Amino acid sequence: MSILYKRVALIGLGLIAGSMAHAMRRGGLAGEIIGTARSAETRRIAAEIGLCDQIAETAAEAVKGADLVVLCVPVGVMAAAAEEIGPHLTPGATITDVGSVKRDVIAQVEPHLPEDVHFVPGHPLAGTEHSGPNSGFAELFDNRYTLLTPLEGADPQAVAKLRALWEGCGANVEEMDADRHDLVLAVTSHTPHLIAYTMVGVADDLRRVTDSEVIKYSAAGFRDFTRIAASDPTMWRDVFLSNKDATLEILGRFTEELFALQRAIRTGDGDHLHDYFTRTRAIRRGIIEAGQDTDAPNFGRASPRKEDAAE
Amino acid sequence: MSILYKRVALIGLGLIAGSMAHAMRRGGLAGEIIGTARSAETRRIAAEIGLCDQIAETAAEAVKGADLVVLCVPVGVMAAAAEEIGPHLTPGATITDVGSVKRDVIAQVEPHLPEDVHFVPGHPLAGTEHSGPNSGFAELFDNRYTLLTPLEGADPQAVAKLRALWEGCGANVEEMDADRHDLVLAVTSHTPHLIAYTMVGVADDLRRVTDSEVIKYSAAGFRDFTRIAASDPTMWRDVFLSNKDATLEILGRFTEELFALQRAIRTGDGDHLHDYFTRTRAIRRGIIEAGQDTDAPNFGRASPRKEDAAE
Repeated sequence: MSILYKRVALIGLGLIAGSMAHAMRRGGLAGEIIGTARSAETRRIAAEIGLCDQIAETAAEAVKGADLVVLCVPVGVMAAAAEEIGPHLTPGATITDVGSVKRDVIAQVEPHLPEDVHFVPGHPLAGTEHSGPNSGFAELFDNRYTLLTPLEGADPQAVAKLRALWEGCGANVEEMDADRHDLVLAVTSHTPHLIAYTMVGVADDLRRVTDSEVIKYSAAGFRDFTRIAASDPTMWRDVFLSNKDATLEILGRFTEELFALQRAIRTGDGDHLHDYFTRTRAIRRGIIEAGQDTDAPNFGRASPRKEDAAE
Repeated sequence: MSILYKRVALIGLGLIAGSMAHAMRRGGLAGEIIGTARSAETRRIAAEIGLCDQIAETAAEAVKGADLVVLCVPVGVMAAAAEEIGPHLTPGATITDVGSVKRDVIAQVEPHLPEDVHFVPGHPLAGTEHSGPNSGFAELFDNRYTLLTPLEGADPQAVAKLRALWEGCGANVEEMDADRHDLVLAVTSHTPHLIAYTMVGVADDLRRVTDSEVIKYSAAGFRDFTRIAASDPTMWRDVFLSNKDATLEILGRFTEELFALQRAIRTGDGDHLHDYFTRTRAIRRGIIEAGQDTDAPNFGRASPRKEDAAE
């Protein structure tokens, strides 16, 4: 691959920015990578592990001379970040972000940018339950989707170049409207996270009743919920507040269906339950066929004692 | 290891029975394994892959001469299975089961058993989203818990021997009261499954709106839910109907907490959300420390393109 951007500025150095730094290096996509973060401790760790070629003290400093600026801060502080960098951007530069919500980010960022830069919002559909400057790895985006939601009248060349960067990072790239993005993500990501957080919270309340048994006997099901519910609290708070309408819409549907199933349990309507559970099985097949998960049992988790079991 | 039971009869040949057959062979724990299933197709497949030493046509035939009988049928048909085998059991034999609910199974099975056998209910906390005679593997129980819920006045020797079998299959074994088992499992397994089924059902409804986008962009979160919601529909129908009280109790608490979070989203109460999400993070730590899951990102899922990324 060849260099796509001479100087890339990463604003915020968490899981996504860190993984982008690794992936851009793997692909030889950036001449130089400058990183910055608000926390001095994060900057210190990033410098120590050589995450970027340079660590800047402030976002204003980081973006100077950059032909690509990537806003990797929580959705709740996008406006502040845009306001800080706005006056220091290079004409012709591309500005993008990696926020999980798009309509709200556009509303926050756009007013602070000069007219002579290209703003192309984006969202890599990839993540783990870990966060911080140490958590990134080059393979995070491989074979995952990155969605770009260009505004009306966006410069096609700027969009194409950003697409090439994400493809170079291993991602499949698609474009869609920001509102559609927010609804789809409310279904596939935001509401599931809220539900997982809730279930783990209920279990936590019950620990007083059941001591450590909830943790000790966490079977599949709950165990998977706890992984989801271990994600970054600040990021998720901001997601729910900024994708409020779509999340509340999907939550409303969820509650309706849950009540119907609850009623079936109460009245002993086994047919309703069986039909419902059969229908949901098919959707899993679709995801595996789309190449978005493994069919191996337990996600291909290695057996904890495989060595002993090898006979 | 040495042989613990001369002749083990497996009634029902799904994931758990199949994995028990593999694990008992790995450990050399059974002299002979006889399997049976109601479906002729299941018996045919089991015979073809040599899952057991013998396949019997009926449960009555399978249990003849067995010193251990394991009921591996869905919870909803435990009474029928017990009724069928009752008259054919060998005096002194141990009868156990692998049902996900214990109080209801005891009520179904106990009345049909003669007085001269030992009934020791059990539940291995292990599973995958796959089912059927082909789905078993020897490592399924390794380092997972199996819970035994012996009745009052149970024969200590019979319990100890069954415990040794499960330990030989790789499991950590603990004993608890049947009611406590049902409450703990309602939290750690039954309610999470119902919620996952519901969320996947909501997404399925929305496919008409969003076409295949829900599947295509299934990010972490939803993707994990679909795996849970791909589990065997008959098994789960029976679980909810037979652990009705505990499930409804936990569902009630879940709904209360979900409404509180929903309200926080509606009113923009970011502090409530952040506090809640921070609290749930700690419980994940506990599960990893208890050795019940991996800390590797994405459950240690292999990267889909690891070869390309190895530079």
